[in-house]
Amino acid sequence: MDYKDRTGQRVKAHKKNADLVVEGGMIVTMAEGQALISNGRVLIRDGIITDIQSRKEKDEGPGIRAEVIDAKDAIVMPGLVNAHTHAAMTLFRGLADDLPLKQWLFEKIFPAEAKFLNPDTVYWGSLLGCLEMIASGTTCIADGYFFQDDTVRAVHESGLRGLIAQGVIDFPAPGAPDPKKNLKLAREFIERWLGFSALITPGMFCHSPVTCSEQTLKGAWEVSRSFDLPLQIHLSETSDEVNEVIRKTGERPVFYLDSLGLIDKGLIAAHAIHLDEREISCLSENGVKIVHVPESNMKLCAGLAPVRDMINGGLTVGLGTDGCSSNNNLDLFCEMDTAAKLSKVYDLDPVGLDAYTVIKMATRWGASVLGLEKEIGTLEPGKKADIIVVDIHQPHLCPVYSPLSAIVYSANGADVKDVIVNGNVLMKNREFTTLDPVEIMEKVKTISSNIRI
Amino acid sequence: MDYKDRTGQRVKAHKKNADLVVEGGMIVTMAEGQALISNGRVLIRDGIITDIQSRKEKDEGPGIRAEVIDAKDAIVMPGLVNAHTHAAMTLFRGLADDLPLKQWLFEKIFPAEAKFLNPDTVYWGSLLGCLEMIASGTTCIADGYFFQDDTVRAVHESGLRGLIAQGVIDFPAPGAPDPKKNLKLAREFIERWLGFSALITPGMFCHSPVTCSEQTLKGAWEVSRSFDLPLQIHLSETSDEVNEVIRKTGERPVFYLDSLGLIDKGLIAAHAIHLDEREISCLSENGVKIVHVPESNMKLCAGLAPVRDMINGGLTVGLGTDGCSSNNNLDLFCEMDTAAKLSKVYDLDPVGLDAYTVIKMATRWGASVLGLEKEIGTLEPGKKADIIVVDIHQPHLCPVYSPLSAIVYSANGADVKDVIVNGNVLMKNREFTTLDPVEIMEKVKTISSNIRI
Repeated sequence: MDYKDRTGQRVKAHKKNADLVVEGGMIVTMAEGQALISNGRVLIRDGIITDIQSRKEKDEGPGIRAEVIDAKDAIVMPGLVNAHTHAAMTLFRGLADDLPLKQWLFEKIFPAEAKFLNPDTVYWGSLLGCLEMIASGTTCIADGYFFQDDTVRAVHESGLRGLIAQGVIDFPAPGAPDPKKNLKLAREFIERWLGFSALITPGMFCHSPVTCSEQTLKGAWEVSRSFDLPLQIHLSETSDEVNEVIRKTGERPVFYLDSLGLIDKGLIAAHAIHLDEREISCLSENGVKIVHVPESNMKLCAGLAPVRDMINGGLTVGLGTDGCSSNNNLDLFCEMDTAAKLSKVYDLDPVGLDAYTVIKMATRWGASVLGLEKEIGTLEPGKKADIIVVDIHQPHLCPVYSPLSAIVYSANGADVKDVIVNGNVLMKNREFTTLDPVEIMEKVKTISSNIRI
Repeated sequence: MDYKDRTGQRVKAHKKNADLVVEGGMIVTMAEGQALISNGRVLIRDGIITDIQSRKEKDEGPGIRAEVIDAKDAIVMPGLVNAHTHAAMTLFRGLADDLPLKQWLFEKIFPAEAKFLNPDTVYWGSLLGCLEMIASGTTCIADGYFFQDDTVRAVHESGLRGLIAQGVIDFPAPGAPDPKKNLKLAREFIERWLGFSALITPGMFCHSPVTCSEQTLKGAWEVSRSFDLPLQIHLSETSDEVNEVIRKTGERPVFYLDSLGLIDKGLIAAHAIHLDEREISCLSENGVKIVHVPESNMKLCAGLAPVRDMINGGLTVGLGTDGCSSNNNLDLFCEMDTAAKLSKVYDLDPVGLDAYTVIKMATRWGASVLGLEKEIGTLEPGKKADIIVVDIHQPHLCPVYSPLSAIVYSANGADVKDVIVNGNVLMKNREFTTLDPVEIMEKVKTISSNIRI
């Protein structure tokens, strides 16, 4: 039955799924030290993985009555974690390309956001983002944007898991014209949604150390800490930003943030491109979580992040797509491929970011970035059933010598056949169960037909 | 009716298609100076584009009886040209990853080729490559490998257009154990297939300036020139190779090849990474054709090619995937995306390789590289009907502010709905008409189950 959420909006209730069995297929659990199960079975009850079995030659079946997801000729793996995105930016996909970051942001994206974002457009843009992410195997997201009540509504309806953060910036922002009230709005957002759903964690997202004042950064950090929630931030995305922070504060961004108390395990830093060795050490010693967004970094000429050095330095690094206007899709399979290949040619080291490492970034480490490592990120009994099934019965995925290689170097998001989050099937044989793709695409097309910058 | 080809093998004859109409959709002709047709129609007779029309509000239809390809909610564009590949290497997809080029080539790929390539495996591997390329919108290929009689058979059966070149190398090679006989074998290959089909051009492919002697390079060039055929070569893929050529000859590779007479408009140079300014000028002045293969270059740590400088220097640059064992797929949509993004972050210039430029590389310029610019590469009346239809009614392709942006930054090969080559429909609504995907995949799985290195 439908019900009203905390903003008074009507919300569709999810049908609780019965027990589930993912039957057959190669299981890549991503659990530490666990070998591939070449023909396996995953049992799920009440949203939790209860058992992972190797099917015998004369197998007698799962022995329980359950809905079956057929994984024959498929790879079964943890759902992907998109650790940095702005889902509603699907609205601006392809609106402005082939421009420098500053021009793209200040002449195109900020004006478009100011003019065209409102609760309705953010809701539909976020729904489209969720649709695209489900279609390409993402089961959990970290989102930072404005009008986040409406992103929460969309993510909740989609059935995805997520850390949804209200943006904080010292400019007049969409839905928050008075920067002075930004922190209060974000605190109220957190209070409104905390405990609303087991799948959704509210939070705050400071735009960057140059677009937020010292006071704003400290305030956002204190509020986040008081709720024991992570704080998201864009860190050292361009050299211009780094230079601006040095000019204003005399210190590089990591040390500036450290002086404000933010360099701590509760901080999720996206981009993290222009870092020196001392900054990497400082981030590592303090357990800051990093999100690598290679395609956006490339497209906006932002630079090449020292990912291999960060990983070797002990940092936990997740993977993100960033928003659709700087990528221009939300496909984490493509992002894994790009992350692996870019590191090779940047570090001149073919081994540093191998296939297994980038899958870790997109699953287990992404879960750690969001503080969800005990719940998701691997397939293990006791963990939440966030699972995807990748169809390998396709020309570009034949033959499979190594499923890890197939996942990273050959597959793309369209190869995902089934998506399960918390034991609920969100896509089965590429049919969506929670969202109506035709309605969402038509709605976004109507919205976008009015967008001109 | 089936018939025997020039090696005595039975060949399936293609059913000649009737007149065709591609109806509706946004037409991206890629013809110089031509604007987008937002709702168009392409008429095809006897394999030739006869007209491209803009549909009127009250349209009366094409006015002819013809098979209709429905392009509503789609982009209609020239088929893509994969200007450097080794189709049969699908056999080794994912067999060896995350290794340096030299180790990958000498310890994995060369031994695998020596042990497992034969006419039968090359035939099935090439068929799988053709299947994958059709499925991802490629309509024309430049292929260089061994046992190329069997690649010709496969490409012919698939209905693709191609320049199929017999490999020449001064090592014992698959099917050519005596290097001394290599040139003779390659000449016989050309004689056997010249004029066999309007779609297939035979040729030669010299492996590289370090794996072929001066004599071999000159010999291959002379034979190619005597038939007025282009010669393919790998050029300056690694700095090791460059250093080896300098050590042996005292000159950088381009000048070494120039001293042998090869630096000329008949040469197709793939990779072209480690070039200095003088080499770029020399290549440009002499009209050498370049093929950029960014994903393979990244994956093998080969290096970053100076693509923007080559284009600015007046060179014609096509795009290729390389073989499947160094990519690991044959998807030119992904390759366009990577080419555009890689140039931005390498050149720190967001404009240099914009969406339009990389589509040119994958269509018009690719056609020029193969010497087919008068036949294919754009949609224009009088040109061969090599056309693909990209389905944009999908979450990751919504909304579309610019079809060029959608093609490069959001789409992937799986979005291609229909593929037409020379007026023959090779894929319709993602159903293959010339090849049997299940048979091919099963056959390659059986072959690969015996491959161990």
